[in-house]
Amino acid sequence: MSSPVADPLPFTVDCLEYSKPDRARFEEWRRGSVGCVHVTIAVWETARETLSVIGEWNDLFAANSDLIEQAHGVADITRINAAGKTAVLFGFQNTTPLEDDIRLVRVFADLGVRIMQLTYNTQNSIAAGCWEDDDNGVSKHVGANFIKEMNDVGVLIDLSHCSERTCLDTIDMSAAPVAVTHANPIEFVGDGVELSRRPKSTEVLRKLAGRGGVVGLSPYVRMLRDGAATTLDSFVDMTLWTIDQLGVEHVAFGTDFYTGYDASMVKWWRAGRWGRESPIPIGDGPVVEWPSWFSSPEAFPGVLEALVDRGLSRDELALVAGGNWMRLFEQGFQPAVRA
Amino acid sequence: MSSPVADPLPFTVDCLEYSKPDRARFEEWRRGSVGCVHVTIAVWETARETLSVIGEWNDLFAANSDLIEQAHGVADITRINAAGKTAVLFGFQNTTPLEDDIRLVRVFADLGVRIMQLTYNTQNSIAAGCWEDDDNGVSKHVGANFIKEMNDVGVLIDLSHCSERTCLDTIDMSAAPVAVTHANPIEFVGDGVELSRRPKSTEVLRKLAGRGGVVGLSPYVRMLRDGAATTLDSFVDMTLWTIDQLGVEHVAFGTDFYTGYDASMVKWWRAGRWGRESPIPIGDGPVVEWPSWFSSPEAFPGVLEALVDRGLSRDELALVAGGNWMRLFEQGFQPAVRA
Repeated sequence: MSSPVADPLPFTVDCLEYSKPDRARFEEWRRGSVGCVHVTIAVWETARETLSVIGEWNDLFAANSDLIEQAHGVADITRINAAGKTAVLFGFQNTTPLEDDIRLVRVFADLGVRIMQLTYNTQNSIAAGCWEDDDNGVSKHVGANFIKEMNDVGVLIDLSHCSERTCLDTIDMSAAPVAVTHANPIEFVGDGVELSRRPKSTEVLRKLAGRGGVVGLSPYVRMLRDGAATTLDSFVDMTLWTIDQLGVEHVAFGTDFYTGYDASMVKWWRAGRWGRESPIPIGDGPVVEWPSWFSSPEAFPGVLEALVDRGLSRDELALVAGGNWMRLFEQGFQPAVRA
Repeated sequence: MSSPVADPLPFTVDCLEYSKPDRARFEEWRRGSVGCVHVTIAVWETARETLSVIGEWNDLFAANSDLIEQAHGVADITRINAAGKTAVLFGFQNTTPLEDDIRLVRVFADLGVRIMQLTYNTQNSIAAGCWEDDDNGVSKHVGANFIKEMNDVGVLIDLSHCSERTCLDTIDMSAAPVAVTHANPIEFVGDGVELSRRPKSTEVLRKLAGRGGVVGLSPYVRMLRDGAATTLDSFVDMTLWTIDQLGVEHVAFGTDFYTGYDASMVKWWRAGRWGRESPIPIGDGPVVEWPSWFSSPEAFPGVLEALVDRGLSRDELALVAGGNWMRLFEQGFQPAVRA
């Protein structure tokens, strides 16, 4: 069928991917008209190790300058996209690279890391993650200091893998709106999903939106209502449901897309170096499955078309595809103004 | 007066000091007949930085081999003491040097770090510290893993700066008895002391003792009932009171003695690199004061004599002066046997 969105496609941001970086991925982005991708450069890495990851990306930028370029902010993203390339934005999924040094927030921000998740699943010095049973939210001294520093420097705080109370505390404490770059609503997907601790409560999402934040919805099958059997129609249902709950200015995409790794990388994500085994068993099957309608970010235009088919207006689509993230980046990447 | 303990003085362990290492300190130890000192080699240092601290101690051991020698365990302590020298035992007051790497517990234990405090005042990935208002104890994954690893390797866990619930959780979870190397009982000193979050509840101390642990009492004025005005008699009262509560096998000394630093070191202890300012104001006065009867570890014999004057038997004194720590070291420095 002739697509109502195909000409031109709206500017699209995927606000979290964690694939093994490779030219094939960058080509997929271009084919999917993805204008900006927030890529994870650290999950358990130390400061020193993270510098090397940045070094590897620098080589990738040099070798693939026809397809991608690093963005430090919104103006970069617009310029890079206008040149027919995909803007790559660095982010941390954990604060381990900061090594409890408050001044490293600015140092890494100056290297382009403009999105930082407070913690990844487990507790750290700053906050509780979604895997803790007993959830004490943001810590009194270290946590409060780092949230203020991220606000002061202009680093967008990400709460995707944080605990319920960490989310609520941070939304309260942050002087700038914050992000859930990649998580689905628990009220929609149900607590029967494989990674039941990852989706967000409606309370968190409403509070996030109330303060100007954005949630990125994901086709990651372990967070979808019917797992790998979830249809595109059901994903669109979730998107429209979330828009109904939060308003169209607060819903976007963060696919959590990854490919190119074997089980050892999944173990690294789940157990870092703090465990010899993953607390969540890693099966012998494929490392990850993606739904038939989202085998890669190349599939973005199909998802956007499905939203239009279900009644989203062109303006609304522009917000959900990329406009909401760009607005939040604009706010979050500059020093927060306190009332 | 002729001292009842002077000939011979009992074997004495000071289970925490954090002075700037210097030959003058080692001479004080010898004059005070201190047979073993647990020295802090890290509080906020990274793994790499801690290696350099160990390197500096190695130089000190070489330059002062007439006075001190590093001990890796109880046999070393006995041998070094028999040779008329003070045994130095390394410890961490925080787990930052482990950098969330479970395997670094053994690596640092192999370098002689046989005592590790889970956290220093603030929350980290393993547990809550005594400065947190909202205390969720030991974390579910990282904390549980590190306690088990310390047990398996034979590292004695120290809870001195940990929160109430971290203490209770750890005593429950640890397969080996644990230590509070330097803290006073809150029930005795009262919550009006300057560092009111540091002293331990009677519940914690009883539970610690019930599992075979030991508490080290301290003449640090910020943890004494009458601050700098506290008399030796009052310190002896506290010691005897604690013995009454816990039994003589569970009470000993950890002076927390430090000297040789300026305010910048106190700021480092209190705020690490996670804060630009100390949450507890650092005044312009002297960095630290010590009671007139404990101006340095040279004063140990006087403290021991006062205990004998107040009725402690020679056998009891031997336990409190050093025997209790040696028994706990013997248990704690080998892999824990699980029931």
